[in-house]
Amino acid sequence: MTAAPLEQYRERIRTELDRVVDFWLKNSHDKEHGGFFNCLGKDGKVYDELKYVWLQGRQVWMYSRLYRTMERFHKPEILEAAKSGAAFLQKFARVPASSGPGKCAFCLTRDGRAVKVQRTIFSECFYVMAMDELSRITQDKEMQADAESMMDQLIFWVQTDPSGLGRPQLPGDPPVNSMAVPMMLLCLVDQLTEGRTDVEKYKDLSGWCVERILQHIQRDGKAILESVTLNGKELPGCQGRLQNPGHALEAGWFLLQYALAKGDVQLQKTAVDKFMEIPFHTGWDKQHGGLFYFLDVDGHCPTQLEWNMKLWWPHCEALIAYLMAYSHIREPKLLDRFKLIYDYTFRHFSDEKHGEWFGYLSRQGEVVLDFKGGPFKGFFHVPRCLYMCEKLLDGLLEKQDS
Amino acid sequence: MTAAPLEQYRERIRTELDRVVDFWLKNSHDKEHGGFFNCLGKDGKVYDELKYVWLQGRQVWMYSRLYRTMERFHKPEILEAAKSGAAFLQKFARVPASSGPGKCAFCLTRDGRAVKVQRTIFSECFYVMAMDELSRITQDKEMQADAESMMDQLIFWVQTDPSGLGRPQLPGDPPVNSMAVPMMLLCLVDQLTEGRTDVEKYKDLSGWCVERILQHIQRDGKAILESVTLNGKELPGCQGRLQNPGHALEAGWFLLQYALAKGDVQLQKTAVDKFMEIPFHTGWDKQHGGLFYFLDVDGHCPTQLEWNMKLWWPHCEALIAYLMAYSHIREPKLLDRFKLIYDYTFRHFSDEKHGEWFGYLSRQGEVVLDFKGGPFKGFFHVPRCLYMCEKLLDGLLEKQDS
Repeated sequence: MTAAPLEQYRERIRTELDRVVDFWLKNSHDKEHGGFFNCLGKDGKVYDELKYVWLQGRQVWMYSRLYRTMERFHKPEILEAAKSGAAFLQKFARVPASSGPGKCAFCLTRDGRAVKVQRTIFSECFYVMAMDELSRITQDKEMQADAESMMDQLIFWVQTDPSGLGRPQLPGDPPVNSMAVPMMLLCLVDQLTEGRTDVEKYKDLSGWCVERILQHIQRDGKAILESVTLNGKELPGCQGRLQNPGHALEAGWFLLQYALAKGDVQLQKTAVDKFMEIPFHTGWDKQHGGLFYFLDVDGHCPTQLEWNMKLWWPHCEALIAYLMAYSHIREPKLLDRFKLIYDYTFRHFSDEKHGEWFGYLSRQGEVVLDFKGGPFKGFFHVPRCLYMCEKLLDGLLEKQDS
Repeated sequence: MTAAPLEQYRERIRTELDRVVDFWLKNSHDKEHGGFFNCLGKDGKVYDELKYVWLQGRQVWMYSRLYRTMERFHKPEILEAAKSGAAFLQKFARVPASSGPGKCAFCLTRDGRAVKVQRTIFSECFYVMAMDELSRITQDKEMQADAESMMDQLIFWVQTDPSGLGRPQLPGDPPVNSMAVPMMLLCLVDQLTEGRTDVEKYKDLSGWCVERILQHIQRDGKAILESVTLNGKELPGCQGRLQNPGHALEAGWFLLQYALAKGDVQLQKTAVDKFMEIPFHTGWDKQHGGLFYFLDVDGHCPTQLEWNMKLWWPHCEALIAYLMAYSHIREPKLLDRFKLIYDYTFRHFSDEKHGEWFGYLSRQGEVVLDFKGGPFKGFFHVPRCLYMCEKLLDGLLEKQDS
């Protein structure tokens, strides 16, 4: 392995990140009401003015992270955009107390009126990420406190009493351990503790998250299932058999990052062997390439209509996962996986004409939804992937030089 | 036009209806807990035991309607199955009063515990259809009263106060006129008044439904939009621009049926010109055949991932619509449409091997979800279509003979 190919990957990834950032800087800012337009057509034109709170929070976080940690993005317009998004969220995201204290909307009108409230924790999670990351730049202690108090609320909902989320308890629907919840909280602990010393309060939580994530290893260690019981058993029916390879891969690099920080070699191995290799082997489409969105562990047809589509974000997560794994473990097989996924991803998702990536392909790899931003696709998975991969390649190339 | 081709259609449709009824009689009955398994694989095997209330109600209705109005289905096992489904619903469908009086679950466990409650009216609508139709056979006055009291609750939610449905009122989400609501209520009025004389109480309601349905004619009469304001204006953004051709076609035959009963010639013309011809022209895929699921009236890409898939039910509704239109208006063009849709439908959806129809095709017409029953596909659209078409063809052939 010589440095040349890795240099080429880094060059392409760096260029792509610049183009993606430009696309959102140019097309998504709402100069009149603050915050960001999320629904952008293939050429960047706004086709719907709704503002999705997940995506507003993610965009604030991404701009702030780029500004804080990559010199070429340390530009006033990026900081200003992050501030505008955070101000919009602080002003409008929370819905009235009838929906529970701290509950945030899922979707707002252009001028900030609540359109929809989800009975889950994710709007609030991205609110925490946004405020914490921006407050690291501005040293705004109130904003940091806002993030931490929302985090306390999240922990209460998840560990003590979920009734404030507004979902009625039904006798046929006992609480389940959904992969998304411990993953997201582990990600938030990482966010809130980075570089800080007074972080004892989150120590138990990260251990709890890891334990909950590991419960998703099922079928004698041969499958990662998306939802399990609170005791880590398989649930009945379609819900129990559901696999989401992209999600498992994302959990994989969250776990690996945690295990590296801890120096936990056994957990590093579990992260790679279980949360990367299993979803890669089960999720990769041997016929047409790309990762399936959903699969049933027993081979039944999933009931999700989009099960066989190829979405951008699982590929983003897979790229981060395998490059991170290779960076630390240095098995050539891991780099081969990265290259295979990279080739598919850059060939199919990246739009040379207008910039940014398409998000939704048919099984055969044709673009079937051609917008660049939509209710679930914003300025997040693509730039986070490119940012993480550039950093990882910087690290790999630095070691090769030295 | 000679009788021969119509005879052939009727023969194929009759055979197909027999096979579809057999498929559900053989595979869907839960002998232990009552009610029906909804999730049946391509060969009829149960792959999930959840029971969906929409589909339970629809199956009771369909069995009862077949038993009551088609001699070859006047068989004890069909009546017994309908009774079993109705008993299951009466025992388990309603959720505790905290969710509002009369509120029914969307989904139950095999033994009847609530899994999910939707904040809409549709579980309750299919409950009404089921109980009314079965009570017409059994002369069970209590069951008929149960249907009518649920109908009163529905009218209250729709016309007076929706708060009992449990959806919070949000400032950015004013109430809208969704096609499904007036369509469904018009269908229920038809159900509850058929052959009865004491039906004054529903007269205003049917007029109200027709008015609400007609508000969906937009863009100078050139488009049918799925959701409009309560004043019949276009809504902003994607929601406002959404077209659902199958739904418009279904509304078309509901309207035509109503207009025929009323002898309202102008409304008959509107039903055909606006609610059949417009969705057919906009919705038919000129490249691959079949009706798209969703479209945006301005040609943007819909945000629904399944927008370009070909689903079974829009094709079922289109077959009923055009055969009904042809039966009464006798324009050859209308029969041509029926034949075109029929050819696509029977070629792509019908499963010669195991019986019943596939439900979900790619744009290109390949089966991408291969189950016969799922959370939204039960014993309803296919048999109702075949039943209605057989009846319409009986009428056409009778007139030709005489």
